[in-house]
Amino acid sequence: MSLTDSSPAQIANAASVASRNLAILPRADRNDALDAIHQSLLQAKESILNANARDLSLAIKAAEDGQLSQSVLKRLDLGRPGKWEDMLQGILDVRDLEDPLGKVTLKTLLDDGLILERIACPIGVLLIIFEARPEVIANIAALAIKSGNAAILKGGKESTASFHAISSAISAALTTTAVPNAAIQLVTTRDVIASLLECDKHIDLVIPRGSNELVRYVKASTRIPVLGHADGLCHIYIHADADPESCVRILLDSKLGYPAACNSVETLLIHQEALESHLPTIASQLLEKGCSLRCDSASKDSLLSSLPADKSALLQDAVEEDYDTEFLSPILAIKTVTAPDNADDGMALSLAVAHINAHSSHHTDAILTSSASVARQFQASVDSACVFWNTSTRMADGMRFGFGTEVGISTNKIHARGPVGLEGLCIYKYAVSGCGQVATDYGGSTGKKWKHERLGID
Amino acid sequence: MSLTDSSPAQIANAASVASRNLAILPRADRNDALDAIHQSLLQAKESILNANARDLSLAIKAAEDGQLSQSVLKRLDLGRPGKWEDMLQGILDVRDLEDPLGKVTLKTLLDDGLILERIACPIGVLLIIFEARPEVIANIAALAIKSGNAAILKGGKESTASFHAISSAISAALTTTAVPNAAIQLVTTRDVIASLLECDKHIDLVIPRGSNELVRYVKASTRIPVLGHADGLCHIYIHADADPESCVRILLDSKLGYPAACNSVETLLIHQEALESHLPTIASQLLEKGCSLRCDSASKDSLLSSLPADKSALLQDAVEEDYDTEFLSPILAIKTVTAPDNADDGMALSLAVAHINAHSSHHTDAILTSSASVARQFQASVDSACVFWNTSTRMADGMRFGFGTEVGISTNKIHARGPVGLEGLCIYKYAVSGCGQVATDYGGSTGKKWKHERLGID
Repeated sequence: MSLTDSSPAQIANAASVASRNLAILPRADRNDALDAIHQSLLQAKESILNANARDLSLAIKAAEDGQLSQSVLKRLDLGRPGKWEDMLQGILDVRDLEDPLGKVTLKTLLDDGLILERIACPIGVLLIIFEARPEVIANIAALAIKSGNAAILKGGKESTASFHAISSAISAALTTTAVPNAAIQLVTTRDVIASLLECDKHIDLVIPRGSNELVRYVKASTRIPVLGHADGLCHIYIHADADPESCVRILLDSKLGYPAACNSVETLLIHQEALESHLPTIASQLLEKGCSLRCDSASKDSLLSSLPADKSALLQDAVEEDYDTEFLSPILAIKTVTAPDNADDGMALSLAVAHINAHSSHHTDAILTSSASVARQFQASVDSACVFWNTSTRMADGMRFGFGTEVGISTNKIHARGPVGLEGLCIYKYAVSGCGQVATDYGGSTGKKWKHERLGID
Repeated sequence: MSLTDSSPAQIANAASVASRNLAILPRADRNDALDAIHQSLLQAKESILNANARDLSLAIKAAEDGQLSQSVLKRLDLGRPGKWEDMLQGILDVRDLEDPLGKVTLKTLLDDGLILERIACPIGVLLIIFEARPEVIANIAALAIKSGNAAILKGGKESTASFHAISSAISAALTTTAVPNAAIQLVTTRDVIASLLECDKHIDLVIPRGSNELVRYVKASTRIPVLGHADGLCHIYIHADADPESCVRILLDSKLGYPAACNSVETLLIHQEALESHLPTIASQLLEKGCSLRCDSASKDSLLSSLPADKSALLQDAVEEDYDTEFLSPILAIKTVTAPDNADDGMALSLAVAHINAHSSHHTDAILTSSASVARQFQASVDSACVFWNTSTRMADGMRFGFGTEVGISTNKIHARGPVGLEGLCIYKYAVSGCGQVATDYGGSTGKKWKHERLGID
C-alpha cells in the first residue's frame, strides 16, 4: 500500500500493472497479507486513535460552526464502543470467506482434446471513493486483496489524519507480503476525483461509499461502470389478506429501525379493504413513536374516523411529490390502492405493482399477504433488486443475506444487483485448451462436428 | 412488434412498461411467439426478398458511385445461398435453447421460515443498433423474446425496405401471441439514435451490432451500459517449445480464415529461440497466401537468412504503431520476445504477457506451447476475455463455444465477457420470503442468530 501524490494517470497505470500480479497470487498469499494488516493495525492502535481524535476535534469545531452535521461526527469517531474491534474483526472475517477466484463455473468438451473452461477472476482495478468513515479503508483494502483486485482509495477530507495513520499501518504491513505495493494506493492529493474518473482505460469499476449526493455525482461524472445506489425509495404493499399483527411489526421495523438507511421503507401502499382492519394499529403505533404520516385522502378519512383525536390531529396530507421522496427520516407516505368496483383481486395487486415499478428506486420492495400465489406474482412482477414477502425491507443487507461482508447495495440492472459480496468484485475469463485444432476444420457439410458436451466440474 | 414513429422518450417508456409484462410470461408463451414469427416470415418470403432486392439495387448504385463498400453490399443481400434459411433456422434454434429465466442460483435458509432465493430474470429494456444485415432483426427479436427483454431495434438506412418487410411480418405474427405489442419496437425515424442513447432511465443495455466506428460512437455517447467490443486486437505468442506443425496450422487459420473478423490474430509474438525453428515455415506459407508480414529487426534478420529471395523481398519493417493496429486484413505484425542472457524461461513468458496486457484489446489472446504449466501461467496472467492454448484465436465465438446463438462478444470487465449468449441478457433478483421476521430481532448479544444454511436447489 502506498500513500501517493502521483498524477491520476500515473496512479491508474500503476494500479493496472500491479493488478496483474495481484490477480495471480495464490489464496495463501492474499490471506497472509490480511493477517499482516490485522497485526499491524493492532500494534498501531494508539497512534491511529490519536490521529482520529485530531480529526474529531477539528470536526467538532466545524460542527459547532454549523459546517458539519452531527451524523458525520458520529461516523468519523473510531473511538465509539466496538468500532475499532469491529474494524479489526472485519479483516479476519474477509480472510475467512471462501476464495472467489479460480472457480470453474462452466466446462465443455468442444471436441476431443479441446476443452472450454469459464474461470472466475478479478475485475482488475477498483476506484473506491468514500467520505467520513475511516474504517472503510481497512474494510475495502481487505476486500480488494481477497478478491485479487488492485484498489485506489480516496477518502474524505474530514478523516485525513485517521486515513494517514491507518494507511501507514497497512502500508508497513504489506511490505512484508507478496502483495505488490501499487496494488493498494491511498490518494491524498486534493481535488483528484474528477481526473481519476476519467481514467477509464485503467480503472474498471468505481465504488462510491457515502451520501446520495456523492453517488449521484460519481454516476454523472464517469464512463467507468459504477457499482452502488443513489436512492433507496422502498415500498411495502399491504394486501387485504395480510396478517395484521405482522404488518405492525414489519412496518415499525422497516420505518423506524434505522430511518436513515437506504433499505428503510418510504411509502406504504395499502389495499382499500385493509384500511379499517389493518391501518389504525399501524398508524397509531408509528405516530406514538414520533413518525409523521403523509396520507392520501382515502387513508386519512379512514384514520380520522378510527384514531383518537390527539392522534388524528397529527395526520398530514400527502402531495404527489411525497411518493417520489426518499425521506431518510421518520416520515411515511401512505397511499390507498383502490381497485374499481367488480374488479377481481388481481387488479389491486396490479395497481400496487404498477405504482412500485413507476416510483421505486428498484432497491427493495415488499408485499405483506397470506397468499403464496399473490406473493409470487408480486415478486415476479416488481422490477427491483430485492422483492420481499412478509418480512422487513431492512433485511436487504449483505450480512443478513449471509454474504459475510458487503461491498455495497447495487441498483444497477447488470453485473451485480442488490447486496454485493465478494462475487461482485469478480468476473470470468474463457480458457480454451487444445492440441492444434483450428476453426476452418469445423462446420459445413464436410467439416468436423462440435461435441459440445457439458463436463462435470471438480 | 410495432413500427413506430413516436418520440424517443415515448418509445423508451412504452418499452419499459411492456418489459414488465413480457418478463412474467411463461416459457411456453415466449416459445409460441417464436413459432409464430417463424411461420409468418416463411409466408412473407416473397415480399421480403422483393423488398431486399429494392434495397440491394439502391445499394449497388451507391456502390458504383463509390458511396458504399462491397462488403456492405454482401451483408445486405438476403438472397445469398443459405442466408434466408439460416435466418429462419436461427429463430427455431433460439426457441430450443434452455429457458434462461426463473433459474434459482442461490437458496439460503436465513432463519426458520425465512428463505432467500436468487432468481434469474430479464434485464429489462435493450436498445439494439445495427447496420446493414437485415437478418439481425429476426435474430435479435428472437433473443429478446426468449430472454423476456423488451427491445428497441434501430436499423441502418441501407436496409430500410428489408427492415420494414421483415418487421411487418414479425408484427403480424406477434398480434396473435401473448407478447405485448410494445415489447419489440422497430424505430424507423431517422437521426433518433442520439436521443435514444439519452434515455437511461428506461433503457438498461445497448447492444451495437456493426462496425468498430458504430461501437465506438455508441460507447462514447451514452451512460447506458454498452455490451460489445470496439476492437479485436488479438495476439498469438509462440513459446520456444511449441509444436512447429501446429504453429503453422494455427497461424494460417487465425490470420487468414477470415481476416476481417474481430477474432483474427493481428500480432505474432515469437520467442527468440523459435525464430529459426518455427518462423520460416509460418512466414513462407503466410506470404504464399498473400499475407503481408511486418517484422521487427530480429525476426526480419532471421527470415532474410532462411527464406528464398523472392519471399524475403516481400518482408516489411514493422513500426511501433503496427503493434497497436487492428488490421482486419491479411497483414500480420511480428515481434520477437528476447529475454536477457541468463534469464530463466519464465522471463520470456513474462515479457510476452506484459506486451499483450499493454497492447491487446482484451478480446482473445493465445499461447502455443507444449508445456501445460507455461500455458496455465499464460492463461492466468493475460487479462483478456478469451485466453487460449494451442488453438486458433478464431475459436472465440458463441456458436463454437456451444452457446447456441451469440448476442455479441464483450470486452467489458463486468457483467458478461467474451462470447455472450442468452445468459448475458439476464440478471437476477433476490426474493426473501418470511412469516413476519424483522431485522431488529437479530444480532447483538441478546438477539436471534442467523442460520445462513445453504439449501439445495431443486
